[in-house]
Amino acid sequence: MLPDKFIRDLGEIPHSRDAAALRVKSADFSWFSPIMSAALAGRLADVVVAPRSEQDVIRIAAACAKHRVPLVARGAGTGNFGQAVPLAGGAVVEMPGLERIAWHKPGSVRAQAGIRLGLLDQELRKNGRELRMHPSTKKLATLGGFVGGGHAGIGSVNWGILRDRGNILGLKIITIEETPRLLELRGDDVNLVHHAYGVNGLVTEVELPLAAAHEWLDTIVVFDGFARAAEFGMALATQDGILKKLVSVHAWPIPSFFVSLRKYLPEGKAAALLMIGAETREAFEALVGDFLGKVSYCVPEAGLYEYTWGHTTMHALRADRSLTYLVCIFPREDTLGAIKRVHGKLGAEAFLHLEFKRFNGYMTAEGVPLFRYRGFEQMTRLYKAFEAEGVRIANAHTFLLQNGGMKDLDAAQIAFKRTVDPHLLMNPGKIAGLDDLPGGLSGAALEAAQLPASGWAY
Amino acid sequence: MLPDKFIRDLGEIPHSRDAAALRVKSADFSWFSPIMSAALAGRLADVVVAPRSEQDVIRIAAACAKHRVPLVARGAGTGNFGQAVPLAGGAVVEMPGLERIAWHKPGSVRAQAGIRLGLLDQELRKNGRELRMHPSTKKLATLGGFVGGGHAGIGSVNWGILRDRGNILGLKIITIEETPRLLELRGDDVNLVHHAYGVNGLVTEVELPLAAAHEWLDTIVVFDGFARAAEFGMALATQDGILKKLVSVHAWPIPSFFVSLRKYLPEGKAAALLMIGAETREAFEALVGDFLGKVSYCVPEAGLYEYTWGHTTMHALRADRSLTYLVCIFPREDTLGAIKRVHGKLGAEAFLHLEFKRFNGYMTAEGVPLFRYRGFEQMTRLYKAFEAEGVRIANAHTFLLQNGGMKDLDAAQIAFKRTVDPHLLMNPGKIAGLDDLPGGLSGAALEAAQLPASGWAY
Repeated sequence: MLPDKFIRDLGEIPHSRDAAALRVKSADFSWFSPIMSAALAGRLADVVVAPRSEQDVIRIAAACAKHRVPLVARGAGTGNFGQAVPLAGGAVVEMPGLERIAWHKPGSVRAQAGIRLGLLDQELRKNGRELRMHPSTKKLATLGGFVGGGHAGIGSVNWGILRDRGNILGLKIITIEETPRLLELRGDDVNLVHHAYGVNGLVTEVELPLAAAHEWLDTIVVFDGFARAAEFGMALATQDGILKKLVSVHAWPIPSFFVSLRKYLPEGKAAALLMIGAETREAFEALVGDFLGKVSYCVPEAGLYEYTWGHTTMHALRADRSLTYLVCIFPREDTLGAIKRVHGKLGAEAFLHLEFKRFNGYMTAEGVPLFRYRGFEQMTRLYKAFEAEGVRIANAHTFLLQNGGMKDLDAAQIAFKRTVDPHLLMNPGKIAGLDDLPGGLSGAALEAAQLPASGWAY
Repeated sequence: MLPDKFIRDLGEIPHSRDAAALRVKSADFSWFSPIMSAALAGRLADVVVAPRSEQDVIRIAAACAKHRVPLVARGAGTGNFGQAVPLAGGAVVEMPGLERIAWHKPGSVRAQAGIRLGLLDQELRKNGRELRMHPSTKKLATLGGFVGGGHAGIGSVNWGILRDRGNILGLKIITIEETPRLLELRGDDVNLVHHAYGVNGLVTEVELPLAAAHEWLDTIVVFDGFARAAEFGMALATQDGILKKLVSVHAWPIPSFFVSLRKYLPEGKAAALLMIGAETREAFEALVGDFLGKVSYCVPEAGLYEYTWGHTTMHALRADRSLTYLVCIFPREDTLGAIKRVHGKLGAEAFLHLEFKRFNGYMTAEGVPLFRYRGFEQMTRLYKAFEAEGVRIANAHTFLLQNGGMKDLDAAQIAFKRTVDPHLLMNPGKIAGLDDLPGGLSGAALEAAQLPASGWAY
């Protein structure tokens, strides 16, 4: 299928058509969802290309445009929503070769898109700064992958989500044209590319604002009941004088899935997994006392965040492969009331964990309830039960960028796509109505696209 | 009145009984209030003592206890509420000789109480850190004075008020006993001393958490109307991704009082006086555009904060000596609604300015409406009109610590006072019912104490 001339045009740029490599590099973490797994089964790239420089990326972009070869940018493949899975074959462009830090000022950094976030953060911390936020996959995930396919993470309890103004300062992209252009996007324009799953140009550089580095204490606090733990979580998240980077609250039995933490997580108890700044530890302990919590673990930076956000699902699936999840956001008004109602009514079927985050100027919690999958009808019933309590649901089981309805995809992003990818070669099949796959959706993919969603702009 | 033996016990510690010195060192900024001015007229210390070290402070404390000499600690005398005015004569203990920085870690600093906040901040910034918050009197005010008599300031839009847990890490005090004790207070215990107007021990050292230093752009944005300016203020204050340290919004004619800024403040317009982080300037400008504001001034760190918070009153009084003020805090729910209603109903008489600040976990605005003083009845009428809109009022015209009602003074603070100041010598007359002045209150002081107040724990 792949034109020989395309391969010739790649020249010295490392690439592989080895079957094992194609299988590995065509997959991401969409296996978290049984529906998405079925929908994406058998989707494979024809070649994996690994650029070493911006010049290589330009050459790949030109070759794809010239020969009409579809392409998908890939960071570490840690996305859960099929972001890195090629739906129409073609090339997977593996970015981790672009790992240079362009510059680092006290308040901001600019680096190539392929750099691992863990490595970047490590470099920043040498100068007393750190990333404002990172996903639970920090060690593996790349800067470009996070900005292209992520939306928030550890640190969002302080800084809001990536889309909130000021959290991405600038981006450089390469257009997919016979003569590729280099575009710098700044201000609100960064959102033409952010969370667009790599359909709007190949991101080669990203500029981010920084936070002060602190000594973070990985801390577990246990509570008799989930309601109390959630109240504590909200209090800690909103106490502005107390340093924190992560506030993640888990209803039993979720803590039972964290095998290596078992001795800090007593049977039947709710648990808060936290990162607390060492300087304000005494103030934090006073707050714990107010809520009758018990600190069972407190260790400097031991990787506790790898049990929260997306990682919670991974540990749960390791323990019980029948589990799946919803992605929901609790309402701005009476956030705790909605959390308690949902837990009270549905907690026996859908196990709740919360990640507190700021979002568009206010504090709320994201929830990823875990439940034993029984099919489409159960999923729809749970969606509706959550919505009835004022909770908004994202469709986490479709690879369609619009999230099951055009309402969430910005028209400006679509218009921009036509200018930077005129042949519609980037990650095709992700935008319903624009670059639909031949024959349309069927089976699990169709079913997934039809799951209800409340509309929730990341 | 002052026993000779007391003076002898002071030894080599610098002190003065010069009439001019006593007059200057017995005054603070309570002249802002015509009521307080009248109430405090003629209150003078008998001696000003200027310790050079902690040992000097211990010696002064012992001498005061032994000879039953009242004492008042003094930083720079920039408080507005009579904090530094001696009501019962005795000694003013002037602290700026204690100006050593004990240590400075990346996340916190410990310094002697007499250090000027401006100097301290300057030292911190050499290492990429700065104070979380400071009053508009930063250049003059001392660390101990801020913690003893202040409550919030520039930076509170990010970190909340001083009383919020985590904003004061520790305090060292010297008790007023024949054999003074040195006590270290940490965690919640710091509030036994914070905002107690110096009645609970002589503070010699303070430990504070720090923030990352940023390049702050002093910025003025003008708006056609005050309502729009207030909406913009709230949006900016809550946009977590945009760096800011000050969000202060002024209704016309307040900007007309800022003589040296006149060319940036068009006739009849509302103005926002801001400190914006240079890194996220583009995101800030996008927000300004959303609210149809116009940036008229944007200069790195030019001291714009000296037109906000308490300084606003000073500039207003310079322009029109007949003005006075209320101190109010807007409600958590529908903050903007209350601001607009108050401005709509009372704005012609009481000119509004707002300082946005976080407070006990949520964003709100403090307001200091300025109006031409017409006496007790007008003041009471305005109090009630503000309260009717859900706005809580502090009584800014009484020197009584309880704010016109025992409800706001913590019983633990009173109990603590008895242990650290058993002879009730510290700043006597500030706690009604405990150390009332001989003959009780009369005239303006009595009138001021009877002004209504909603109760507002700083």
